Parts: sequence; structure tokens; C-alpha cells
Amino acid sequence: MSPNMPAGEYRNATPATPHPPTDTAEESTWLWTQIKAEARRDAEAEPALASYLYSTILSHSSLERSLSFHLGNKLCSSTLLSTLLYDLFLNTFSNEPELRAAASADLLAARYRDPACVSFSHCLLNYKGFLACQAHRVAHKLWTQSRRPLALALQSRISDVFAVDIHPAAKIGKGILFDHATGVVVGETAVIGNNVSILHHVTLGGTGKIGGDRHPKIGDGVLIGAGATILGNVRIGEGAKIGAGSVVLIDVPPRTTAVGNPARLVGGKEQPTKHEECPGESMDHTSFISEWSDYII
Amino acid sequence: MSPNMPAGEYRNATPATPHPPTDTAEESTWLWTQIKAEARRDAEAEPALASYLYSTILSHSSLERSLSFHLGNKLCSSTLLSTLLYDLFLNTFSNEPELRAAASADLLAARYRDPACVSFSHCLLNYKGFLACQAHRVAHKLWTQSRRPLALALQSRISDVFAVDIHPAAKIGKGILFDHATGVVVGETAVIGNNVSILHHVTLGGTGKIGGDRHPKIGDGVLIGAGATILGNVRIGEGAKIGAGSVVLIDVPPRTTAVGNPARLVGGKEQPTKHEECPGESMDHTSFISEWSDYII
Amino acid sequence: MSPNMPAGEYRNATPATPHPPTDTAEESTWLWTQIKAEARRDAEAEPALASYLYSTILSHSSLERSLSFHLGNKLCSSTLLSTLLYDLFLNTFSNEPELRAAASADLLAARYRDPACVSFSHCLLNYKGFLACQAHRVAHKLWTQSRRPLALALQSRISDVFAVDIHPAAKIGKGILFDHATGVVVGETAVIGNNVSILHHVTLGGTGKIGGDRHPKIGDGVLIGAGATILGNVRIGEGAKIGAGSVVLIDVPPRTTAVGNPARLVGGKEQPTKHEECPGESMDHTSFISEWSDYII
Amino acid sequence: MSPNMPAGEYRNATPATPHPPTDTAEESTWLWTQIKAEARRDAEAEPALASYLYSTILSHSSLERSLSFHLGNKLCSSTLLSTLLYDLFLNTFSNEPELRAAASADLLAARYRDPACVSFSHCLLNYKGFLACQAHRVAHKLWTQSRRPLALALQSRISDVFAVDIHPAAKIGKGILFDHATGVVVGETAVIGNNVSILHHVTLGGTGKIGGDRHPKIGDGVLIGAGATILGNVRIGEGAKIGAGSVVLIDVPPRTTAVGNPARLVGGKEQPTKHEECPGESMDHTSFISEWSDYII
Amino acid sequence: MSPNMPAGEYRNATPATPHPPTDTAEESTWLWTQIKAEARRDAEAEPALASYLYSTILSHSSLERSLSFHLGNKLCSSTLLSTLLYDLFLNTFSNEPELRAAASADLLAARYRDPACVSFSHCLLNYKGFLACQAHRVAHKLWTQSRRPLALALQSRISDVFAVDIHPAAKIGKGILFDHATGVVVGETAVIGNNVSILHHVTLGGTGKIGGDRHPKIGDGVLIGAGATILGNVRIGEGAKIGAGSVVLIDVPPRTTAVGNPARLVGGKEQPTKHEECPGESMDHTSFISEWSDYII
Amino acid sequence: MSPNMPAGEYRNATPATPHPPTDTAEESTWLWTQIKAEARRDAEAEPALASYLYSTILSHSSLERSLSFHLGNKLCSSTLLSTLLYDLFLNTFSNEPELRAAASADLLAARYRDPACVSFSHCLLNYKGFLACQAHRVAHKLWTQSRRPLALALQSRISDVFAVDIHPAAKIGKGILFDHATGVVVGETAVIGNNVSILHHVTLGGTGKIGGDRHPKIGDGVLIGAGATILGNVRIGEGAKIGAGSVVLIDVPPRTTAVGNPARLVGGKEQPTKHEECPGESMDHTSFISEWSDYII
Repeated sequence: MSPNMPAGEYRNATPATPHPPTDTAEESTWLWTQIKAEARRDAEAEPALASYLYSTILSHSSLERSLSFHLGNKLCSSTLLSTLLYDLFLNTFSNEPELRAAASADLLAARYRDPACVSFSHCLLNYKGFLACQAHRVAHKLWTQSRRPLALALQSRISDVFAVDIHPAAKIGKGILFDHATGVVVGETAVIGNNVSILHHVTLGGTGKIGGDRHPKIGDGVLIGAGATILGNVRIGEGAKIGAGSVVLIDVPPRTTAVGNPARLVGGKEQPTKHEECPGESMDHTSFISEWSDYII
Repeated sequence: MSPNMPAGEYRNATPATPHPPTDTAEESTWLWTQIKAEARRDAEAEPALASYLYSTILSHSSLERSLSFHLGNKLCSSTLLSTLLYDLFLNTFSNEPELRAAASADLLAARYRDPACVSFSHCLLNYKGFLACQAHRVAHKLWTQSRRPLALALQSRISDVFAVDIHPAAKIGKGILFDHATGVVVGETAVIGNNVSILHHVTLGGTGKIGGDRHPKIGDGVLIGAGATILGNVRIGEGAKIGAGSVVLIDVPPRTTAVGNPARLVGGKEQPTKHEECPGESMDHTSFISEWSDYII
Repeated sequence: MSPNMPAGEYRNATPATPHPPTDTAEESTWLWTQIKAEARRDAEAEPALASYLYSTILSHSSLERSLSFHLGNKLCSSTLLSTLLYDLFLNTFSNEPELRAAASADLLAARYRDPACVSFSHCLLNYKGFLACQAHRVAHKLWTQSRRPLALALQSRISDVFAVDIHPAAKIGKGILFDHATGVVVGETAVIGNNVSILHHVTLGGTGKIGGDRHPKIGDGVLIGAGATILGNVRIGEGAKIGAGSVVLIDVPPRTTAVGNPARLVGGKEQPTKHEECPGESMDHTSFISEWSDYII
Repeated sequence: MSPNMPAGEYRNATPATPHPPTDTAEESTWLWTQIKAEARRDAEAEPALASYLYSTILSHSSLERSLSFHLGNKLCSSTLLSTLLYDLFLNTFSNEPELRAAASADLLAARYRDPACVSFSHCLLNYKGFLACQAHRVAHKLWTQSRRPLALALQSRISDVFAVDIHPAAKIGKGILFDHATGVVVGETAVIGNNVSILHHVTLGGTGKIGGDRHPKIGDGVLIGAGATILGNVRIGEGAKIGAGSVVLIDVPPRTTAVGNPARLVGGKEQPTKHEECPGESMDHTSFISEWSDYII
Repeated sequence: MSPNMPAGEYRNATPATPHPPTDTAEESTWLWTQIKAEARRDAEAEPALASYLYSTILSHSSLERSLSFHLGNKLCSSTLLSTLLYDLFLNTFSNEPELRAAASADLLAARYRDPACVSFSHCLLNYKGFLACQAHRVAHKLWTQSRRPLALALQSRISDVFAVDIHPAAKIGKGILFDHATGVVVGETAVIGNNVSILHHVTLGGTGKIGGDRHPKIGDGVLIGAGATILGNVRIGEGAKIGAGSVVLIDVPPRTTAVGNPARLVGGKEQPTKHEECPGESMDHTSFISEWSDYII
Repeated sequence: MSPNMPAGEYRNATPATPHPPTDTAEESTWLWTQIKAEARRDAEAEPALASYLYSTILSHSSLERSLSFHLGNKLCSSTLLSTLLYDLFLNTFSNEPELRAAASADLLAARYRDPACVSFSHCLLNYKGFLACQAHRVAHKLWTQSRRPLALALQSRISDVFAVDIHPAAKIGKGILFDHATGVVVGETAVIGNNVSILHHVTLGGTGKIGGDRHPKIGDGVLIGAGATILGNVRIGEGAKIGAGSVVLIDVPPRTTAVGNPARLVGGKEQPTKHEECPGESMDHTSFISEWSDYII
């Protein structure tokens, strides 16, 4: 994910936000150092939170240990113990550099796109979208290893605890922001590209075909607004924008904007308006308002 | 519920799925045998999950014991202990054959309609819609016995844990599939028929009348898409289909399809298109797309 | 909040509902007395619930103690202990008479507007919208005291437990009813006036501006229907009504009704229909149906 | 157990203590009525304890339900859930009238022999000796049903939670008082008669024989003082008294007193002093002092 | 308690141990400052323990808050919640300066008498004898306020969790060291003076008198060795020493030493050896060995 | 530890007990295979225990993982989370082959010396003496690494949970059986050799010397009976036997037996009887009875 990503609603309000090195391994090290520094600063300023910050971040030697601990304690239940889940997460993150890199990219995505995200540690500890996504990545890995009952049990815990329901078979890229995240549903054969931003209550659902490939394919850099429902094996082209509350049942071309229920392309079906920027990163929700909403009310 | 139900999005992808005997008592026995066999197979294949499967399924002598245990442990809190809830569930299920039959019918509904439902035990353990519905059935029984404060406390726990908010007075038939289920809201005087399928984020809400009968009545075999909002004491006719994201404020005739915000009948108000199949069972989300969505985008 | 509020969907069905004194201090005393009487009556009628009622209400000497205990036990986790949260809530409620008054006003709002709200204690114990709102008030107080990491941790717990995600910086008035509440999202710079009623799945979100003031301002007495999405720094005028499922991106004038996706004003953009009553209190969802929905289906 | 038992150290200080009917079935009913009345009185006087009293006693319909609930919640762990234990205890107590009768007899024993035992409910809730003994009775029943691993797991939990370690094969009569109870150890082939009183830190241990019958046999009405150690397959005759801190390695004749390390018979080996009363019930610790202790210091 | 107390077995090995001011109020402040400094040092040196140290000590503003938090979390159960206990402890410690002073004196006693006690925070967090004693002080206060059922419930929890069983009516002075503490039993009418040191497995028990005053009275400065059993309303004179494993049934004169089973006075009954120092503070276990033990083996 | 150890009280009653290979690494493998086979057999025979057996044993890939999981879940508290402890135990056991070998030797010791120990898994899961000893070994390792506050916190948890209080500085050999274990206290400078058997309530305490080396040194093969108290820097010679309830304050020569309070040597001080066998392994409690006890009573 580019550290030069353009700003939008979710752009970080402070231009001075430090940027990581461009090398992946260094990026991870840099990120963990930032997170520990943030947590240390917060622990000093707020004794009531220090215990929480030490147990979740400051007592750990790496991001994957911190994340495994936090997820294990969040997702455990009386019948799925935290130690079992911690072990499962830690083993998977330790063995899969891809998953560690994706977690780092997701942290950066939240920090640079969401102006409400004041620190990396805030995202790591408090963003249920981030946590659900990382737990899904582990469930997906289990799914590909044919450990399906365990993957499905994990999906169920994620849905109970975070109200985020992602089928473990769904494929999700890196640099993903699930903002607010409550109510997100992603079906079995859905695919989500890189640098996608998805708001809460978004559904990537099926259409009624018999089993098989029946869920949306979301291109790189797509932005999907709150409450949008995308159904069926449709393709949302690279850099497209789906308005909040839209119901999308057919393909949306790259870098166009679809809004409404049922969704229409802004600018019209024949010659839809195309935008230049990557909305999944710029998070620009407003450019289409003048064309769509204003003349109606 | 018919074992010959047609397939749709949620039809089981594998035609070889075994079907239960048609006699209700035998069906229950058959189902429990299937569930234990599934759990045993999964426990052998996945030691990390075996403890979970033994505690929730394999250590129990009947479906109602398994379900009571699982619900008691899911819904308990520090002020409502699992033992109390377990006792409450077990007593109610033991005394009410109707509730046991409904649980069986709901398990079959999920298994045969949802291609993502790979086994009965998967539904029993992991489907919050299924679990919320069974817990609601107990709350409803308490409500009819004038144990209203307890019924309301149960509603609150179900809403906290599963994000499914069903008033204990609401009447719900058999063979119900609440798919994904997050965000479902069903009001006090709502009635849901048999073999209905309801996706997540669906609201069966009130309209502002003073108390009294103020929530929707959903006919048998209805399918309600994700995010649909149906408000007021309106009647959704038998076999009707409500599109995802629709806002429905008036009656919908049997076997017609309503889509949009506000919802319109596909085919027009005067001569709406009628379909033959039972969408609550076939789960066909696609037949109306060509008529509705395609020409707009 | 006026005890003479008009009835609507949420009006109390029983005209004999007792009303509190008009003096604030007396109102609080009166309310707590009512709550204890209700809990005592329920404990006597339902032994299975008595332990719960004693631990949450009857063992406490004041509403703020009861509320702090209940919230502490609901929002705690293995890394944020109930004793810490209890202490935090109790200290804040004890030091802030404004927060105690707001809690009382919210209890009255639920009781008089929602016909499903059978008692004050029912709301206090079981309404996640009420509980999330009171916890938010504490988080907001912490935010204004520059205890931001703690405020954000609290926001995260509220979002996990109640599926209600309110940024701690958001300003919320008194007499608020979050009905059902699952999926509500309120952004950082949102402002909500007094006597507002907000249904579940409502989003008061941002629009993509760089940080800064970017969320909706909701006037006094507004009613926002289920699933409505309001985005950007727009102004919803006093006493306006937003239909269920609407997507609102621009200002809505006072005492008008906006419906649809994208939302239009009922009566037309130029001369919108104006209503007299305060919909946030009357909760009238139906007056616009004849104008909007009926002629379409 | 006789309601007319003589008083001693543990005699009830208040002569007005009500006595149960002599018929066993009626006794149980009478006892449960007493316990509920005590709990109700305490709940009214002490709101801080009311929740505890309702959950443990007042919400239950019988002594065995109350006891099963209390033991299930006391003995559970993160790997042995309270619901599983509750179920196990309730099934066993429901199927075994002998165990219910023994529990009643033990409650009466504590109440009439221990002046610190102010009520039956005090013993039921707070006496770890009583609770450990009842849990042992269930473990013993499991042992006799060849469910040995479960019986041993239960023994382990009792030892962890109450610091009372009784092998599940040990046979224990009725009307038993384990006073204070911490540190009591009872070996596999030990037998304890009826109306025995055993203080804390008492060991009924083995002697080094190869497996087989190697632990003490304690006659009816025996009193064993704090810290006494009895080793080997020795016989403590009916009505004998073992002084605190004694180490007993050989048989003690009926109605004699053994004291010291190693233990000697008071009155001498040849013609030991015999007492008339039943020390297990009278709990007289003092009669031998003048003969033994006084002349030494 | 004198800061100049002589050393013994339990004397602090490091002569440089800082001593508190002699004024009580200043002593408390000084002590709390020491404890926080110790905890901060340990948290920095040991990240794995930092969360524990922050939650138990460093997040609190006073010793009584820290202690109430720690006891509430140690003694809670599924039916007696930590928030309730925390509240109870905090209210009692806040209202009773005597109890706070006693806690300080006990901390100093452990630190200066027990060479294994490396810091005040070590005692505060880890000494079950210290924690049991402070919880008993609260139970005793409740007992004197006629809140007996609550006091007895607390006794039961202390006995379960710490294996220390002190009747809430027992009167205990200041500057008490319960070292190791497992198995200590103190009866209803027992009285313990100031600056007493009591090892584990010690019993201050009754003798069989009918109710009434039936337990030992322990003078100031007494030292009671491990496993000693003292029975009946006997008086252990000021500064007396009771050898480990002794069984004491009659009075022991001031500043003498009683050893054995049954206990004899060292030096003989007529002219027992008298020692000068205060054994409860010096903890000298050895002076009597040459007279008693050596010539026997 | 020799597989040919002689039998005694604790000798295994079944001569057919399989013996491990003599090579250490093979022994560990053999042992873990045995344990899994036992657990599998028990899980099949007892469904109610299967979940427990899978979570504690059958889901793990090695003895150290199983042990770390079990200890983490046993010793955790609300302020010391199971995941933290699990991590700590697993890291230590993984890095220290000595500790793993000692755990194996202790399992064999219990299995071959204690006739009540029916299987290795029984000891692993249920013997608090075994579990406390393994947790102590970890605490001791931490102590030697100068992680003293963490080691002391662990000691405190072991004392709370198992009522076994071993100072983390104490040195303990291999092949140790702490039988029953409740109330065992081992001081800071104590040393315990190999193949020692120690019953419950045994104290290895200090004598009042100023800090420094002040606790007993226990030679190889020693047997210490229940309730024995050994105080001071005394030496219990190799193969010595200490009778139950003895109070030992001076050295005991190798292969002699000390009994009584104060302890005397059997056979007399000048020419004590010497035995040939190793009592720590043979566990013979009876050979001295005829000489000591019988002629007294």
C-alpha cells in the first residue's frame, strides 16, 4: 500500500503523520515500534488504561503475539478457550508471513484513510473491522488447509463477537479498511481486491444460483458505502464507487459510481462519469452528490 | 417441511444430501443421529475442535439437551448464569414437543436452502439466526405463560449476543431460516408463517399506531432479502418475495415480488408478475433482476 | 422532557402510566422509586429472575449505582475488568448531575414513546440503545477531559457488546430513544439535539472531507427511521422526519419529511409538506405513507 | 440421626432450635421449608446478599436443585463447565434418594452440633465440609457405577476448591460433620460410619501396604479432633474419641479416647477410661483434659 | 507497631530497609508511596507482570482502593460478583480509619518480620495471610453491624479461596503476620492481640462447651508455630511462644514457651524459662531447641 | 528413577503396569503415548468427560503443551490471564529439557509409588501436588533468571489454587511425589533431593535465623509423612523416614526413622535402627510401628 495515498474523508487530518519505510520487513518493524511507543505514551497518561495496554501490547515481543493475544481473548467463549485460540492464531501468524504483511497493510489503511483513527494502536485494539478481518485471514488459511469445521467455528465466533460475518472461503486482499464494520456480510465465493474500503452494513451476498460461484468480485481500490447490498456473481470494477444504501445486482464498470436502489451509474448507463482517483483510498463520498442527490430533494 | 423442496441460492449443492423420514418423531431421531455422526467425524479430523464438539454435542443424549447447553453457555452473563439458563431451556424444550419439532424443521431449512450450510451440526453450533430463533421460541413460550420479565430479559440477551432482536410476543412458524441474521428486528405483534426465509438486517417494524396490532404479518413461504424494511400491520402474501433493501409499507399480494425504496411490485401495481415456486424455500433472488435492475443501470 | 408528550407508535399504550414530577431532582427520586417497585414486583412474581433483579437494581441505593454496576458487568472483558469499569462509571455519574439527568430523561423517553417498553426497569436492564447511550455519555465526558484513549476503548467495548458505534466526541442531547439500536453508527463531529428518536441501523456518517466537521447535525425532536443513512455535515431541521431506509446527503428543513434513496422531501422540494407535531416524540411513521408509498406499489 | 442428640461444643446454643419430623420424607420437606424461610429472611434484611440467596436457594424448587446449582458453580472450571456439573449433580441426586437423605442428615448434624452454625442455609451455602461431602457422595456413586475417570476428576476439583481430598471409593455414612474441613484427606479404602464428626486437617491415610485394604475404618459416633492423623487399616471403635493432633497407628477400642503423638489411650492401655456419651454427636473435647494435659504443663 | 522491632527468623535480611514515619497518617502515605514505587520498578523490569501491577496497584489512588480491587477480584465467584465485593470493601475501608491503619500495620509486620517478604507490594499482592486478614477485618465490621449473613458469606469465600477460616466474630489486633496461612482456623470467640505472628495450620479452636465463650485468647506479641492447635477458652500470655505442632489445652503464662503434644512449658511447669524478647516480633523459633529437642533424638 | 522400584503403600497394585524405556528421550515419547492412549480410552468410555480430556490432553501435540495449557487454565485469575500464563509455561518448558525430564520423572513417581494413581493421565490432570511442583519448577527457573516478582506472583497463585506454598528459590530434585499435597510449605532455602516422597501438610520451614540459609535439606529417597514439620537448616539424611506428625528440629542420619513430637530416632539416639530400602520409593510407613507405637497405646 502506498504511503502517498491521497486524502479523503478517511485521510489523516494531520499531514505530519509519520510514514513507514517502503520495504515490507522494515515496515513491520517500524509499525510495531510505533505501536509500542503509542501504547507507552497512553499508558503513562492514563493509569486506568495501563493494565489493558500492557496486557494487550506492551508485554508482547511482536505484533503477531499482540494480535494473537487480543483476538484469543476477544473471540474465546466458555467452550472455545482463549488459550486454544491464542495458540491457533499465533501458530498461523508465525507460519504465514503473508498474513503478517496483510495485517500491517490493514493497519496502515485505517490510519491513513480514516480521520477518526488517531493511532495504529487505536486500530489494533479497538477496530472490530480490523480484528474481524485478521481473524478471517486465519479462518481462511484453515479453510484452504481443509480444516473446515474449525474455520466455520471461527467464523461463527467472529459473527457473534464483532457482528461481522465473513465466510472463511472468501478471498480478501491487503490494505483493507472495514470501517465501523457492524453488520458486514461476505459470502463464500466473494473476492475482495487490494486497497478496498468497505463501510458497515455492507453485504456481498449470493443470488440464488445452485451452490457454485455466486458472490461479488470486488476490484482493487473500490469504495463501498454504508448499507450497500451487492448480490450475485457480479464484478465491481477497479476503482469503482458504490453509494451508501445502494442495491447492486449487475456489474459496475471500473472507476464509475453506482448509487440508488436499484443502483444506477452516475452519468448514465451509456456514458457513466469516470473519476481518476482511487476511491478505496481517497474515500471520497461527495463528488457524486451534486449529480445525484441534490436535484432530487 | 418437504424434503423435496426446490433448490435456489440456498439449495444444497450436493444432491446426495440425505433426507429425513417424513414422520416427525422419526425425523427428530434421524436428525440427532446425523448430527452426532457429523460431530464425531469432525472431532476425529480436527483435535483442536474435539473438546468443543464433545461439550456441545457428543456428551449429550438428545438434541434438546445439546441445544439447551449451547444456548445456556452462549446467552449467559455475569448476572444471568449459564446454569439458570440451561435449566430454563431444558425444561421448556422437554415440556414442549412443538418447540422441538420447530427446531428440527429449522435445522432442515438451513441445511436444504443454504448452500453454505455444510452440515446440520454446523447450523446447530454456528448459525446465530438458528440459535436466536430457538431461544426466541423459549422466550415466546414464557411470554404466553405470563412470565414476561423473564421473556424480556431473554430477548435482551439474544439481542446483545446475536444482534437479533425479536420481541417475545412475536409469533414465528416452523422451517424458518434466518440467514446471517445480524441486525434482524421483529416487533411485538409481528407474525411469521412457515417455511419463511429472512436475510440479515431485515426489520419487521411498527408504524406509529398506538400500541395494539402494529407489525407485519408474513405469509408462508415468503422470502425477504437482506436489509429489507417492512413497517406496519401490513400483509406479505404467501409466497411473496421482497427484494434486498426494499422499504415496504403496504400489503404485498401472494406470489408477487416487491422491490425498491419505496417498494414497487415487479410487473406493475395493476398486473404484477406472479411466480410459481415458493421463494421462502427456493430462495430465488434472481428472477426479477432482468425486469427491474438491468434496464436502470 | 414533557410528561404530556403526544402518543405515536411509541406512545405508551396504557394511558394510566404514571408521570413524574416536573422538578428534575424530584423526577430522579420518583423514577428510582418506580424502578425499585417494578423490580420488586417482578422479583416476587418470577423467582428465576429475582437474583438478576437484586444484583442489578434492588441491592443498589441509587440509579447511578445500579446503572454503573450493570454497565460495568455488561461492558467488561478479560482485559478490561468490571471493577475498573464500575469505578469509572460510578465516579463519572456521581460527579456529573447532567449525566444523571440525561439518563432519567432517556428512561422517560423510552417509556412514553415505545409501546413495547412496559416499565422503566425493562429499559434500564434490557435496552441496549439506552445502555449504549449512557456509556457513551461517560465516554464523551472522558473525551472532553482529554482522556481520549480510555474514551476510545470504551467506544470499542460498546460497539462489541451492543453493536452501537458512537464516537466519543459526538454530542448527544437528552430525552433520546435509540430503539432496538443494533447497527447504529454516529460519527465524530455529529450532534444530536434533544428528544430525538433514532431507530436501528441508522448511520450519521462522514462524507470524505479531510478531518474536521464532517458529520450530520440533528435538530431537536427529529425522528430517524430504521436503516436511514445520513452522510456529511448536513442539518436535519428541528422536528424533521427521515423515512426508514432513506439516504440523506443534504439538509432537510424543519418539520418536513424526507424519504427514499436518495431522499426526497414529501410534498416536493419547493413546497414540502410540513407537520405540526414533534415526530421525535410522537414517533408517527405513517402520515407520509399515503403521499409516498401507496401510489407506487 | 436423632433430633434429640445431646449438646457439646457443637451443640446448638439456642435450645429453641426447631426440630424436624422423624419421618425421612417429611424431614426433607421440613428442612427445605426452613432453608427457604431463612434465606428469605436474610434476603430481606441484607439487600447486598439477596441476589446470592435468590440464585442459590430461593429460585430453586428443591434442596437437590439448590445444592446441584451451588456445587456446579463452586466446582466448575474453565475446562469443566458449570452446566455439565450441574447436570451431573442434579441427575445423581434425583435418582438417588439415599444421597438426598444423607444431605439432610448432614445439614442437621452441622446445625445441632456446631454452635457456630446459625442456620441450615448457612451450612448449605458456606460450609465447605458439607459441600465437599455432598460432592463426594456423587463422586462415590459414579465410582460404584464404574465411571471412575469422572469420579477422579470430581475428587480433584473438590480438592482444588475446598482443600478437602476424599478418594471417591471411600465409604461415608450419614449425619457427618466435617467442621472447617480444610486439609481433610480420606483414602481409597477408608470407611466412615454414621454420626461421625471430623475436624479440619484430619488424615485417614494408608500405611504402605501394597494396594488393597489399607485405610482406617471409623465407627459410628466417633469424634476426631483437628489435625489428627490415623494411618492404616485400623479400626476406631464406635463412639471413640481421637484427640486433636494425635497420630494413631493401631486400633482404638469403642468409647475410649486416644490422644498424643503417638496416641495413647486415656486411662491406660490396659484399662482405658470409657465414656458413655456419643462424642461424634456431643462433641465433648474436654473430658480428657484433666487426665492428660493438665498434669503435664 | 514499632519500626525498631528486633529481627528474628523473619527479620528483614537487608538492614537498609527503609522505615516509615512514626505518625500514623504519615505512615500510610509513606507506605503507599513505597508500594507504588516498588510496583513501578517491577513493572518496568518485567513487562509480563506490568498489566497485573497496573491493574492491582498502579491504577489506584490509594491503598484502600488497591486492596478493595484486589480482594474483590480474588474473592468473587459466579454468584458473588467482584463489583459487589469491591463496593463492599471500598465502602468499609473508606469509612473505617481503624481498618486502614491495621492494614498498614500488617504490611509492616510482614515486611519486617519475614525475611522472604522482599517488598510491601509483594505482601499486598501475594500473601494470602495478609489478604485473608484484611477481608476478615471487613467481615468482622459487618458482624458488629449485625450484617451477619453477609459476614458469614465472606468468611466462606475467604476459606474457599485462601484456605483460611476465621469466624467473623473473632477479634484480631494490629500488626498481625499470618505467615503462609494455609489451614489457619480461628473460632468465633477467639481474641488475638497486637503484634502476633501465627504460622500456617494453626487452630484456635473450641472445646465443646455449649456455645458461649469457648476459644483461645492470644496475648500481644505471641508467636504460634506451624501446626499448633490451641483449644478452648485458654489464655496464651503476652509474649509467649507456642512450638510448632504443639497441642495446647490450658493457659500458657506470659513470656514462656510451650512445646509438644500435649504441650509442656520449657523449663518445667513450676519454673518455666522466661524469655525477654517479644517472639511475635522477633520470631525466634530456636532458643528452646537445645532444651527440648536435642537431648531426645 | 528406576523402573524396578520396590513397592510399598504407593507401589502400583497391578504388577503388569508397563514400564518406560530407560533412555530419557524415549521415555518422554513413551510416556506421552501412554497418556494419550489413556485419555482416548477414558473419553470413549465417558462422554461427559471427553470434552475435558480433549481440551487438556488429546488436542495437544506434546506433554509440555498439555501441561502448559492445563496449568495456565488452573492458575489464571482475572488479573493474570490464562493466555499469559500458558505462554510463560510453554516457553519455559520448551527451552528447558531439564524441566520436561523432571515432569516425566514425577509422573512415573506418582504412578509407581501411589496405588491410588490409576494412570499417568490421572496424575497429570488431577494431582495438585504434581501440578504445583511443575509450576514451581517454572517459578524457580524464573527466580534464577532474576525475574523474581513474576516468580513470586506464580508462587502466590499456586498457593491460592492448590494450597501448596513453595518458595520459588527452593531447589527440588526429580522423581518427586507430593501426595495429596494440601498444606505443603517449603521455604526459600530448602533443598529437596531426588526420589523424595512428601505427604500433605508437611512443612520445611525456617527457624528464626536472620535471612540466609535457614531451611531443611532433604536427602535423596527420603519419605516424609503427613503433617510432619521440619524446621531450620537441618539435614535429613539420604533414605531417612520421618513419621507422620513429627516435629523435627535437628539432623536425622541417613536411613534412620524419626518419629514423634519432638521427633526421636527409632532404635534410640545412639544406635538408631537402619533400614535398607529407599523409603521415598518404597513408601513403607509401617516398619516402625511395632517399635514405636504399639507398646504405648
